[in-house]
Amino acid sequence: MTHPSAVPGPLLATIRSPEDLRRLHPDQLDDLCAELRDYIIDVVSVHGGHFGASLGVVELTTALHYAYNTPTDQLVWDVGHQAYGHKILTGRMDRFETNRKYGGISGFPKRSESPYDAFGVGHSSTSISAALGMAEAFRKTGSTNKAIAVIGDGSMTAGLAFEALNNAGALGSDILVVLNDNNMSIDPNVGALKEYLADITTSKTFHKIRNEVWDLLGHFKGAGTKLRKVASRLETVLTTALTPGGLFRSLGFKYYGPVDGHNVKALVRIFEDLRTVPGPKLLHVVTVKGKGFAPAERDQVKWHASGSPFDKVTGASLAQKPSRPTPPKYQDVFADTLLDIMDRDETVVGITAAMPSGTSMLKVMNRYPDRAYDVGIAEQHAVTFAAGLATQGIKPVVAIYSSFLQRGYDQVVHDVCIQKLPVLFAIDRGGLVGADGPTHHGLYDLAYLRCIPNIVIASPLDEHELDGMLRAGIAYRDGAFAVRYPRGEATGTPGTGIPVPIPIGKGRVMRDGNDIAVLSLGAIGRHVEAALPLLDARGVEAAWADMRFVKPLDTDLIDELARTHRHIVTVEDGTRLGGFGSAVAEHVAAAHPGVGVTILGIEDRIVEHGSPEELYRETGLHAEGIAVAVEAAAERVRYRQPIG
Amino acid sequence: MTHPSAVPGPLLATIRSPEDLRRLHPDQLDDLCAELRDYIIDVVSVHGGHFGASLGVVELTTALHYAYNTPTDQLVWDVGHQAYGHKILTGRMDRFETNRKYGGISGFPKRSESPYDAFGVGHSSTSISAALGMAEAFRKTGSTNKAIAVIGDGSMTAGLAFEALNNAGALGSDILVVLNDNNMSIDPNVGALKEYLADITTSKTFHKIRNEVWDLLGHFKGAGTKLRKVASRLETVLTTALTPGGLFRSLGFKYYGPVDGHNVKALVRIFEDLRTVPGPKLLHVVTVKGKGFAPAERDQVKWHASGSPFDKVTGASLAQKPSRPTPPKYQDVFADTLLDIMDRDETVVGITAAMPSGTSMLKVMNRYPDRAYDVGIAEQHAVTFAAGLATQGIKPVVAIYSSFLQRGYDQVVHDVCIQKLPVLFAIDRGGLVGADGPTHHGLYDLAYLRCIPNIVIASPLDEHELDGMLRAGIAYRDGAFAVRYPRGEATGTPGTGIPVPIPIGKGRVMRDGNDIAVLSLGAIGRHVEAALPLLDARGVEAAWADMRFVKPLDTDLIDELARTHRHIVTVEDGTRLGGFGSAVAEHVAAAHPGVGVTILGIEDRIVEHGSPEELYRETGLHAEGIAVAVEAAAERVRYRQPIG
Repeated sequence: MTHPSAVPGPLLATIRSPEDLRRLHPDQLDDLCAELRDYIIDVVSVHGGHFGASLGVVELTTALHYAYNTPTDQLVWDVGHQAYGHKILTGRMDRFETNRKYGGISGFPKRSESPYDAFGVGHSSTSISAALGMAEAFRKTGSTNKAIAVIGDGSMTAGLAFEALNNAGALGSDILVVLNDNNMSIDPNVGALKEYLADITTSKTFHKIRNEVWDLLGHFKGAGTKLRKVASRLETVLTTALTPGGLFRSLGFKYYGPVDGHNVKALVRIFEDLRTVPGPKLLHVVTVKGKGFAPAERDQVKWHASGSPFDKVTGASLAQKPSRPTPPKYQDVFADTLLDIMDRDETVVGITAAMPSGTSMLKVMNRYPDRAYDVGIAEQHAVTFAAGLATQGIKPVVAIYSSFLQRGYDQVVHDVCIQKLPVLFAIDRGGLVGADGPTHHGLYDLAYLRCIPNIVIASPLDEHELDGMLRAGIAYRDGAFAVRYPRGEATGTPGTGIPVPIPIGKGRVMRDGNDIAVLSLGAIGRHVEAALPLLDARGVEAAWADMRFVKPLDTDLIDELARTHRHIVTVEDGTRLGGFGSAVAEHVAAAHPGVGVTILGIEDRIVEHGSPEELYRETGLHAEGIAVAVEAAAERVRYRQPIG
Repeated sequence: MTHPSAVPGPLLATIRSPEDLRRLHPDQLDDLCAELRDYIIDVVSVHGGHFGASLGVVELTTALHYAYNTPTDQLVWDVGHQAYGHKILTGRMDRFETNRKYGGISGFPKRSESPYDAFGVGHSSTSISAALGMAEAFRKTGSTNKAIAVIGDGSMTAGLAFEALNNAGALGSDILVVLNDNNMSIDPNVGALKEYLADITTSKTFHKIRNEVWDLLGHFKGAGTKLRKVASRLETVLTTALTPGGLFRSLGFKYYGPVDGHNVKALVRIFEDLRTVPGPKLLHVVTVKGKGFAPAERDQVKWHASGSPFDKVTGASLAQKPSRPTPPKYQDVFADTLLDIMDRDETVVGITAAMPSGTSMLKVMNRYPDRAYDVGIAEQHAVTFAAGLATQGIKPVVAIYSSFLQRGYDQVVHDVCIQKLPVLFAIDRGGLVGADGPTHHGLYDLAYLRCIPNIVIASPLDEHELDGMLRAGIAYRDGAFAVRYPRGEATGTPGTGIPVPIPIGKGRVMRDGNDIAVLSLGAIGRHVEAALPLLDARGVEAAWADMRFVKPLDTDLIDELARTHRHIVTVEDGTRLGGFGSAVAEHVAAAHPGVGVTILGIEDRIVEHGSPEELYRETGLHAEGIAVAVEAAAERVRYRQPIG
């Protein structure tokens, strides 16, 4: 199904695979790039999606597939936001309008989707390690295939990328790293490496020194033959010493660049040359994020991705205005609460790892620029840095996506929890995140955090609990405190307006009932709330408790419910293995044999992308699915059957 | 209790704290260092401990405490192996002979032990992040206190250190990084950064270029005044451009060095100067690991640590020869099995992250140097690199300590499991590791891995199961496969000698019984085996099953046991929360309400250091503790009381 707004241009229409592309004359590539760019704009303006990154690499993508023999040569896209052009050129134009939709193609490269997707991505900074593994595999098997990593300057700040550079330089493997330097991650890139790259591309220090040297050498032109010879020799020696990219050469890479990333023909010639250069090499390519779409070039953060239709010339939103006021986002509630806390307590600081807009930490950075840190794509450092601050009495709040916290896991264990340092983690994107899919779902956090000592784990049912939990977390001085909440809209229900910390380790009964008690954790409790009338209608009167904390678990409340009910159903929007339900089952199996436990959560499998609604339906965690599962448990209890 | 072999020299005996040290005249520091070095050798030669690193930094330690105002100034030791001199100078000389012993002082800096231990460590590469947090805290509070990180060249290769440098350079914080360059981590340091540092310290490239330039400039001495002036100006410009340490300067640090790390008076002068230099700065110090103890200088890997007494002159072991043949170590069984597999299958390769000797991967590197990789301290990269290899049909085996795999957690999830790539993880140091303590215990792995889809998790009861599980893991092509085993001696029980892969997801009943079934996972099952006769003597006939796999869990076997027993006790040498017992409880609570489950494992708290025997006794996981717990469960089942 091709939407009428997205008809490929005449050249692009002929490209069903990179083989077709490689049959074009180099002089046709400019036109092809223009058509490719238009096509991306046409589709994304209607269907939404990540945007700026892919527009920035249209020429790079075209040149790589033109010069390299994909999919035999392995092309690894870091993060993968920028792979739209790659998908369109590799046989997925017909399906491109299903991008990021339920059942459609993924917004990221994905091995199961295409042989051209050499490595599945989503999190940043993996590409050099993966390509290095491929290059070493080729060396082992005597293959002449090439391995190429395309990585942004933002991704380059992550430790994983550095570890890979360090290893590649030592192994001397035949790998090409294309550094796509657009001075952005999702938010503006930060860190010393950024300054370094900017220094190269603007040639500030470098040109200053080189010009002065060349200038001085010029004085010798009028000197005698011998001195002129010496000056010429000096020039040769200094050309090596004063070439930019010393940082990468320090790590054993040959450095090339910087080159213009929007000159497709020049890029093709460069790649054809680089194919023949053995060993580790880095090409520094300068691109403009959002290139060719004026509003995106002007505001790269805003146009990182678009979730709704927009005018493809002006960029004006074409989304329908909501007919009723929309509830606040959890992210905004987080930021507003944090700001209120910071207004009263000047020892509180905020930390984000390259997600100021996604987590709304940006609001904090705007009001308190000296009290909020964006450390760049560096989750490990974000956590240990927070631990260091905490040793000196500062109260750090680390706002981080659930799936990205996996990157800082050892730091949570080793630097925060073992030392019982008071660090507050605001864990964003808990649960099924939607269109970003498997790499971004926040499904494992409850399990991977629960097993660590010295951490409190809370999850709010609504925005009012989020507020109260953040306040409880800041006041807590006896170790780590994690508050985990979903992406997007909260409930919009009225609160008291009075900020009150929530008592740690205490759940609350929301409704009494017979037979079965449903224990929920976090925002998925709203689905339980919606399931209750369905169950009433089917004659099942279930009790409901909002447990609020995975750790410490409110075992008093569970004991009470276990004494008065014959079966417990737990509900969480994370894996069924090891998380909240597991904590309840551990307690009940030990203390209340005779009371059964049914754990509802995400089954032990990868959940693909789609809207949260579609995915909660698929995983049976929508209201109807919960009602069906509770009713089945009630039936079995009635007939004393084991619950499967 | 001071052992007679360890009497401090006259100067050292007067040092109860760094304040005493700072009262000495600089001319006394050489003598003090000699005494400090002797004292370390005296104690470690009797009691064992980490060794080489601390000998290498005797002068550095003394100079830092002399020049800085500790503990007000914050001194962060990376990893902490090298902190023995620090502990002795900071009031812990009396307790130093309890180092790494049960109830004694920790082998690593530890905040709860001393105000001089600014940050607890054990894992590498955290120091710059932590010190940066401290420096920022000082900036916020207007304090003039200093923050210093002392980090080895091996630790510098980890991504976390790079992330911290990148952030520090951008923030411009007042931080001093002392790069202790001894060209070693525990095993010889690897990677491009090592080459880079060696190039600086031997000044190969650098001197070559500089000498040539200076040489050429010399030709202008005889020229006219104007040209000589130009040449002089050229010299000034080039001095900046050709200073070593460009990599660190690229990241916004002022670079100083390299300097001799064994000249204590010169170091004091340098630190006194550096105190007055604002902003991020790095001092490159060259030291010799094991300095002053000839055997340790000669073989730095062997003398990284010593577990047993040795002659303090020759280094000859004074350990008593065991009267009976000792069982093989799990590490050797791992390496021998892997070698046998590699002999038959040339697509298998080994990977370690700076632990070739600890994991015995060294054996593999020796026989197959082209088929084994030591990627350096870079756990994240090790995992993603393995994933890259696996995409091309190579079968990577990643040997890694349980607690270090925490560093590669996101890579296990994102790069291996989501893509279902066949990577075999040999997880070493599962369970309580002993003297290294909390940072090194492998207690969370079962829980943090079990929650991820597409991974098999096995743990062997003995060396024969280890062999069979590794063979099963190599043959498994449907995702990740983890085999988790403890440090040290296996059982020494005779095997069949016939290599047979173990069927995936199948446990085995080791003994039938009444009342209660004990389900164990892994080598802790040997404690269950020893508990059975104790229980028999008390009239409790328990069944015992060696479950072998946490995932897939053998639910058939559990169903069978649940039907024939009234209570199940699970035993594992990991956290009680979310691991093996939790998996059993989840299943039983759902499928067999009426059957209780008691989970024996490590309670939800930090376990300190000591011998494994002492720690298993303390945590109740020794044979007697298991017997007591099983008997208590049997009593309660008899009287139908809930199990607390």
